[in-house]
Amino acid sequence: MVISLHIRAPGQGLHNITDKVEPLVKNAGFIDGLCTLFIKHTSASLIIQENADPSAKRDLEAWLNRLVAENDPLYTHTLEGSDDMPAHIKNVLTSTSISIPIQNGKLALGIWQGIYLWEHRYSGGKREIVIHIGH
Amino acid sequence: MVISLHIRAPGQGLHNITDKVEPLVKNAGFIDGLCTLFIKHTSASLIIQENADPSAKRDLEAWLNRLVAENDPLYTHTLEGSDDMPAHIKNVLTSTSISIPIQNGKLALGIWQGIYLWEHRYSGGKREIVIHIGH
Amino acid sequence: MVISLHIRAPGQGLHNITDKVEPLVKNAGFIDGLCTLFIKHTSASLIIQENADPSAKRDLEAWLNRLVAENDPLYTHTLEGSDDMPAHIKNVLTSTSISIPIQNGKLALGIWQGIYLWEHRYSGGKREIVIHIGH
Repeated sequence: MVISLHIRAPGQGLHNITDKVEPLVKNAGFIDGLCTLFIKHTSASLIIQENADPSAKRDLEAWLNRLVAENDPLYTHTLEGSDDMPAHIKNVLTSTSISIPIQNGKLALGIWQGIYLWEHRYSGGKREIVIHIGH
Repeated sequence: MVISLHIRAPGQGLHNITDKVEPLVKNAGFIDGLCTLFIKHTSASLIIQENADPSAKRDLEAWLNRLVAENDPLYTHTLEGSDDMPAHIKNVLTSTSISIPIQNGKLALGIWQGIYLWEHRYSGGKREIVIHIGH
Repeated sequence: MVISLHIRAPGQGLHNITDKVEPLVKNAGFIDGLCTLFIKHTSASLIIQENADPSAKRDLEAWLNRLVAENDPLYTHTLEGSDDMPAHIKNVLTSTSISIPIQNGKLALGIWQGIYLWEHRYSGGKREIVIHIGH
């Protein structure tokens, strides 16, 4: 089963999408299986991160923004805006696809884990995540 | 088939778990297939790395420890210890899930590849890795 | 279905392999499914990146080469050449496996996405990518 999920993040940063994925897994009705998420973009990515303390999320965003700075004199790919080349690099340092087993009919996420869309552009528009659910 | 593997790493660093995963694949009895590992934590991760020269493992650990330093003045998420925020960042820079094809009844690992649990906390306790084996 | 793909990259850097993977998916004849690529090496990796503007590719390579420098005094694993330890680190910061859903008989890649083999050695030789295609 392959389903497309369309999400428009309100801006740059981490956006929890766990509650958009869980119903798809429930509806699939598999007791055991594998759920794979794939993002069809090179300037936004997918990660699993802590869903509890918002300070962890903020620190993670700030740390990566410092590592992959805008306006780095190294960049030659600058026509699409100062946030574009950093977005491609951040995409590569994080993940384009994530696979989560389905156990007892549910995603086998740890108690503190959430699934996040990481929008790396200031205004990335609508993003498409393709989800495969299989046995 | 979905199986949970529980591992307590003796401390921070890379721990080879290949010999804990291989028997599960053998027992599954699939000639061809896919084995996916998922770690249910946000302060430990999974990687595939060289299993031969221990100096490569040590350099990798030292390099990442320097890149993602403890006590960075940027951190606000500090209540859980100086190793906690670096652990979340290291988790995101490495992998939460890895998929390895099964070929001729065995994991299709390269001759120098091992599967590693990377414990990012000094004392992370028991970690759970959920493993899906499918056709 | 599990297939091995052998590729010899002409040198260090990103090499687009999308047109080597697409025919395998087409031949498999699955309407819906999942295609997983796994690279059997620890000094080369797989990423999904922009296939349009070559400047994005060049900047990405230059940025990672600066972050993971050769001849870092931290390295003790130096016997295999100055490009070897950086190659292992770059491998860990990028991906060893990537899973792409198959939708309507094709890889569900975004319009700007290509699949790349990232050779991290100057002369890596022939690389083997194992590809699993399943329902």
